[in-house]
Amino acid sequence: MSNQLFIHINQFIEVNECEFQKILTFFNLCTLNKKDTILRAGNKCNLNFFVLKGCIQMYFFNDKGIERTVRFAIENRWMTDYLAYQNKTTTDFHIQAVEITEILAITYEKQEKLLTLFPKLEKYFRKVYETSYGKSLLMMKYLYNFSKEDIYFHFTEQSPELAQRLPQNLIASFLGLTPEYLSKIKNKNQS
Amino acid sequence: MSNQLFIHINQFIEVNECEFQKILTFFNLCTLNKKDTILRAGNKCNLNFFVLKGCIQMYFFNDKGIERTVRFAIENRWMTDYLAYQNKTTTDFHIQAVEITEILAITYEKQEKLLTLFPKLEKYFRKVYETSYGKSLLMMKYLYNFSKEDIYFHFTEQSPELAQRLPQNLIASFLGLTPEYLSKIKNKNQS
Repeated sequence: MSNQLFIHINQFIEVNECEFQKILTFFNLCTLNKKDTILRAGNKCNLNFFVLKGCIQMYFFNDKGIERTVRFAIENRWMTDYLAYQNKTTTDFHIQAVEITEILAITYEKQEKLLTLFPKLEKYFRKVYETSYGKSLLMMKYLYNFSKEDIYFHFTEQSPELAQRLPQNLIASFLGLTPEYLSKIKNKNQS
Repeated sequence: MSNQLFIHINQFIEVNECEFQKILTFFNLCTLNKKDTILRAGNKCNLNFFVLKGCIQMYFFNDKGIERTVRFAIENRWMTDYLAYQNKTTTDFHIQAVEITEILAITYEKQEKLLTLFPKLEKYFRKVYETSYGKSLLMMKYLYNFSKEDIYFHFTEQSPELAQRLPQNLIASFLGLTPEYLSKIKNKNQS
């Protein structure tokens, strides 16, 4: 299963089987049940996660106590609160499994050691973060520009697999809609 | 003036004067007047910018033709549309100077060559992108959570220099307010 990380890394840089076996020793493989929490708001953030199978969500509770999701990560995606991770501070976010999920987890210290031992992985992470940052700028454009209805249609168009796979309440939490309003939009479109 | 990039790089990795002089040959130094445009929506994005002095803004026009700013970059900040930059595609964003500005510009091809010649710069860019991505996740939390009034106060608290320096219409464009509404919030707070 961790073979996926091997394939993912090799999309950006060249790593051979022998090197990858050493790289893998820096990670812990974790199997999560639905709703298992791997990062809790108010705690220090010392882990970075790579999703092998399943889906995790990064969210917070707003002032009204409503869950708001800022990101989902499915297979081959990295996720953590990067500011808290690099500054070793407490996080404002929770991360939990949306479905039965397998992840590779690495601590900040181990990731730094890994990068010292395999400096070519710097390029891999540079590319991964560059892409993630680019996507978040585009997401901000959608948030600034689109009506809630348009954001939903954009989401289903850009991430059809995710739109099929995620429960409605989580899609609503991501798009800033009430589940009732999301249901209305969907029904309107189907009728 | 480009000495600033030398200092900035050395906050993350070690680069000596001699190496830096070689690094600098990959960049073009540009002086911009207020409102000079360095990236235009609809064009291919092939440049990455480092601000030496001044301020640039990244923005788009929404469906109603209103300018919406997604980011400002002041001294020691990098800015481009990273998705369009790495995919060599057209961008949805404009980037222009907010005030008289000096930047270092590098093309995608030159940045890749630079990183091949100085692989240790991979770590520098990895750290820069990691921080930028982390900040954008936090910004999304604010956009999702705060009232428009709270977003303004958070902005003045987190970026007092920027709040002082930027014209009101640009702050409004960044925070998603009309200049009139921003004026109201400010007056309410001063009274």
